[in-house]
Amino acid sequence: VRYPPGALFADLYELTMIQGYFRAGMHRRTACFELFFRANPFGGGYAVAAGLHDALDFLARLHFPDEDRHYLRGRGLFGDDFLSYLKDFRFTGDVDALPEGTPVFPLEPVMRVTGPLDECQVVETALLNIINFQTLVATKAARIRHAAGADNILEFGMRRAQGPDGAMAASRAAFIGGCAATSNVQAGRSFGIPTKGTNAHSWIMAHETELEAFREYAQLYPHHSVFLVDTYDTLGSGVPNAIRVGLEMKSRGHKLAGIRLDSGDIAGLSIKSRSILDQAGLEYVKIFASGDLDEYRIEELRKNGACVDVWGVGTRLVTAHDDPSLTGVYKLCAIRSDDGEWTPRRKVSDEAGKSTLPGRKQIMRLYGSRGDPVADWMEIEDALPSSIPVKEAILKDIENRRLISDFDSAAPMLRAFLRGGRLVGEFPDLPGIRENARSSIEKLSSNLKTLHQPEEYKVMFGPALRKFDRKSI
Amino acid sequence: VRYPPGALFADLYELTMIQGYFRAGMHRRTACFELFFRANPFGGGYAVAAGLHDALDFLARLHFPDEDRHYLRGRGLFGDDFLSYLKDFRFTGDVDALPEGTPVFPLEPVMRVTGPLDECQVVETALLNIINFQTLVATKAARIRHAAGADNILEFGMRRAQGPDGAMAASRAAFIGGCAATSNVQAGRSFGIPTKGTNAHSWIMAHETELEAFREYAQLYPHHSVFLVDTYDTLGSGVPNAIRVGLEMKSRGHKLAGIRLDSGDIAGLSIKSRSILDQAGLEYVKIFASGDLDEYRIEELRKNGACVDVWGVGTRLVTAHDDPSLTGVYKLCAIRSDDGEWTPRRKVSDEAGKSTLPGRKQIMRLYGSRGDPVADWMEIEDALPSSIPVKEAILKDIENRRLISDFDSAAPMLRAFLRGGRLVGEFPDLPGIRENARSSIEKLSSNLKTLHQPEEYKVMFGPALRKFDRKSI
Repeated sequence: VRYPPGALFADLYELTMIQGYFRAGMHRRTACFELFFRANPFGGGYAVAAGLHDALDFLARLHFPDEDRHYLRGRGLFGDDFLSYLKDFRFTGDVDALPEGTPVFPLEPVMRVTGPLDECQVVETALLNIINFQTLVATKAARIRHAAGADNILEFGMRRAQGPDGAMAASRAAFIGGCAATSNVQAGRSFGIPTKGTNAHSWIMAHETELEAFREYAQLYPHHSVFLVDTYDTLGSGVPNAIRVGLEMKSRGHKLAGIRLDSGDIAGLSIKSRSILDQAGLEYVKIFASGDLDEYRIEELRKNGACVDVWGVGTRLVTAHDDPSLTGVYKLCAIRSDDGEWTPRRKVSDEAGKSTLPGRKQIMRLYGSRGDPVADWMEIEDALPSSIPVKEAILKDIENRRLISDFDSAAPMLRAFLRGGRLVGEFPDLPGIRENARSSIEKLSSNLKTLHQPEEYKVMFGPALRKFDRKSI
Repeated sequence: VRYPPGALFADLYELTMIQGYFRAGMHRRTACFELFFRANPFGGGYAVAAGLHDALDFLARLHFPDEDRHYLRGRGLFGDDFLSYLKDFRFTGDVDALPEGTPVFPLEPVMRVTGPLDECQVVETALLNIINFQTLVATKAARIRHAAGADNILEFGMRRAQGPDGAMAASRAAFIGGCAATSNVQAGRSFGIPTKGTNAHSWIMAHETELEAFREYAQLYPHHSVFLVDTYDTLGSGVPNAIRVGLEMKSRGHKLAGIRLDSGDIAGLSIKSRSILDQAGLEYVKIFASGDLDEYRIEELRKNGACVDVWGVGTRLVTAHDDPSLTGVYKLCAIRSDDGEWTPRRKVSDEAGKSTLPGRKQIMRLYGSRGDPVADWMEIEDALPSSIPVKEAILKDIENRRLISDFDSAAPMLRAFLRGGRLVGEFPDLPGIRENARSSIEKLSSNLKTLHQPEEYKVMFGPALRKFDRKSI
C-alpha cells in the first residue's frame, strides 16, 4: 500500500531519533519546529505558501497500524517497548501556519509545529515533502500569471510530473498560483478545478485527412472545439483547414473556440494566424499556444507581439524547471523547559547560510495605506509587546533601525490551524485559497514581482529575536 | 479519492477524443502507439528504462466506476451513449516494452501499446507520467553511480520530491539505477529496498551538548551509529566529540559506523577528518557526505581527493535537478486496416525535431564478443527478415550503410508483457530489475557513460523503416 502516505512515510532517522528520545525519557518534552526556506525560488522576490491542506491531512491520519509496526520490528533497530508505545501514537500537537496562498519570504516560518518532541520530529520529512513542492509550484504559477498579464493560463503538465501524485499536487498548486484550469481530469474531480483541453496530434493522425479530423471534432463539440494546427504544416494546411471548418461552423450558428499552436515560431505564426482568421471573419477564434512555455518565454513572446489569448503551460510549471526544488527545511527552534519557559535552540553551521534563527516566532505583516505590504516584522512570540499596541512597539523598534518610515496597520500572519491535533475552525476551500493568493499577490509591489532582479522584501527582526541573532545568517 | 490513479487520471482531451472515435465508429480499430523520447536526459549518452511496473498496474486497474462516470456526465461534454459504453471499458490490448533497467536511446520505443484505438489513446497521459519520471530518475541514479565509482550511494531525497508518490517513485527508480539504499521507510516497506539513516541536526540540538547527543545515540544503536558532525563546528567539536564517543564504543567492543559531513568544504573536511580518525585508531569509521550532491559534484570531490566512503544524494537526484523532465512522448505510429494490414502513421512537424517515425517497430541490440552493445538496429516489425537469419539480414543491411563492421549476436529488446490486457509470464522483481540495470550499464562503452560530451550510440534503421523515414528527424 503506497497511498495515502502513513507514518512510515518518513526518513528512517526520524524513527531512530524518536526511539532515542523515548529511551532518554525526552520524547514528551514540548518542542517547537519551524518549516522555512532560505531563498526565494527562481531568483524571485517572494514565494506563495501552499500544501497546508495535505500536510494537515497527513497529521490527522498519523498512526502506526499493526503491519507498519511489524515491518519496523523486522528492521532490528527498534525495541518492543518502543513499538508498543507506537501503537497508540497520534499527532496531538498544535500547528500555526500561513494560510495557503499567502506570500512568504525567506526565513519566515511557513508552518510552526508545537507539541511532544517525538510527534513533531517524526513528521519532518512528510511535511517538507508536501509543503516544499506545492509552495514551489504555486510560486511558479504566480510568476507565469504575472508574465501572461490578463491572459488565461491552462495547466497541461501531468505527463511530465513526478508520478500521479506529483501531477495531482501540481494541478492544485498551479490553480492556487493563478492557472485558470487544468487538463488533469482527476484533479478536476478531486479538487473541483475547471478542466480544459484541446486535442492531440493523434486525433489528427487517426483520420485520413486533417480537414476530416477538424470536421469530426466540430460536429461533436460545437462549443468546445480548439483545433491543433501544427500536425502537418501550420500555415500551409492547419490554419486554412481550421478556417474552412470554422466558417462551416459559423454557417450553422456555432463558434470555433480556438486554434492551438504547439511548435515553430509561435510569435510569427500567431501574428499571421490572427491576421488570416480576422480576414476570414473569425475574429472571435482564440489562439492558444503551448510547447515548453514558462514565464520567461511568455514574456518574450508578448514582447515580440505574439497574438496569443490562452497559454498552455506544462512541463516547466509542474517540474519548476529552472529551480526544481524549494530549499525548505524544518528545524527545532525551541524546547519548553520543565518550568514552562521556552528555551530557544539553534543550529550554528560552518556554512553561514545553514544556521537557523532560534525561538518560537510570529510574523507581523506591515501594510501601507492601500493595504499593500511594505515590510514584515518577525519576533519571538512570547516577546510580542503586550502592554503597548503592537503597531506602536514595531514603529518604535523600526525607528531605531531606520528601515521603514511608516505603515498603516500590522497583522499577525501565522494562524492557528490545529490545537491538540484537531482542526480549529474551518479550512478554507480551494477557490478561497486561490482568491487569497490573487488578491495578496496583486498588492505586492511590482518591484518584487518582476522576473528580473526583483528587489528584496524587508523582513525585520524584533528586539528579542535580534538578541538571539548574534551571528549573521 | 486521489489514490491509486484511475481512468480519470488523464488529460481531458484523451476523453473528448475517444468519445470522438466512438461517435465515428473508429474506436475499436486496432492502433499502435509508441512511447519514446527524443534526446537523452542530462546531455548523457543513454537512459535507463523504468516505471513499467506501475504502468502495467495502471492498465490492469483501468475502468470508469459509477462515480467517475457521474462526474463526467456533469461536464456537459459527454453523451449518455458514450458514458454507458465506458461502464465496461477495460484495457484489453497488448504491451511490448523494454524490461525495466534496460539502457535505451533516443527514438527507440520504451513501450509499444497495441489495441483498440480508444483504449490505447485514453492511457496516454498516465503512461507518460509514470514512465517519464521513473526513467529520468533511474538514469540520474546510474550517472551518480558512475561518478561515485565503487562507493555506496544512499538516496535521501524524499523531502524535496514532488509529493508523497513522487518520493516513492523516486526511491524505487533510484534503487533501479544503482542506489544501495533509501532513507524512505515506506519505500523500504512497499518495495523491499534497504533503508538507511544517520541522524538530524535536531537530534543534536535537542540535547544539552553534542557529546551527550552522540553518547545517547551510541548507547541506543551500537551497530548503526553515524554521527552528524556539522551542527556547531565540524573540526572544532563535531569530529573530536565523535572520536571521543567512538573510542568509548570501541572500549565496549562496538564499532562506530560513521560520521556525516553535511556542509562546508567537503573535500577538505573529509581529508582532515579521515586523518584524525585514523590517528585515533578509528580507521574503520566511514565518512558519509551529503548536501546538494550530484554526479558532477561527486566527480569533482573525488578528483580533489575527498575521503568519502558513502554519498547521501537527495534533492538533485529525485528532482533530476539539472534536467527535471524527460521529453517522452506517446505517438500513434500505425493503424490496422480492415484487411488486417498495418498502415504506418506519422506526424510531420514544422519543427524537424517534433516529427515522428512511422510504423510498429522492434529494436534489435547488436552485441560484440564480450556481450557489449555496439549498436541498435530498428525496423518495422512486420518487415523483420523471416527467410534469412536476422543477424545476416542486419549485417547485409549494415554493410550497405557502412556504419558498423561486425557484431557477434543480435537480440530483440521489446518483450511481450501484456497480451489481451493480461500479464504474460512473471514480472521481474526489483532486485532482478536492478541487476539488469547494473549488468547492462556495466557493458556499455565508457565513452557513452562519461558525464562530459559522451559519444552518440548508433541507432540504425532497417530498410523498411528507412523507406518511411523520408524526412530527416
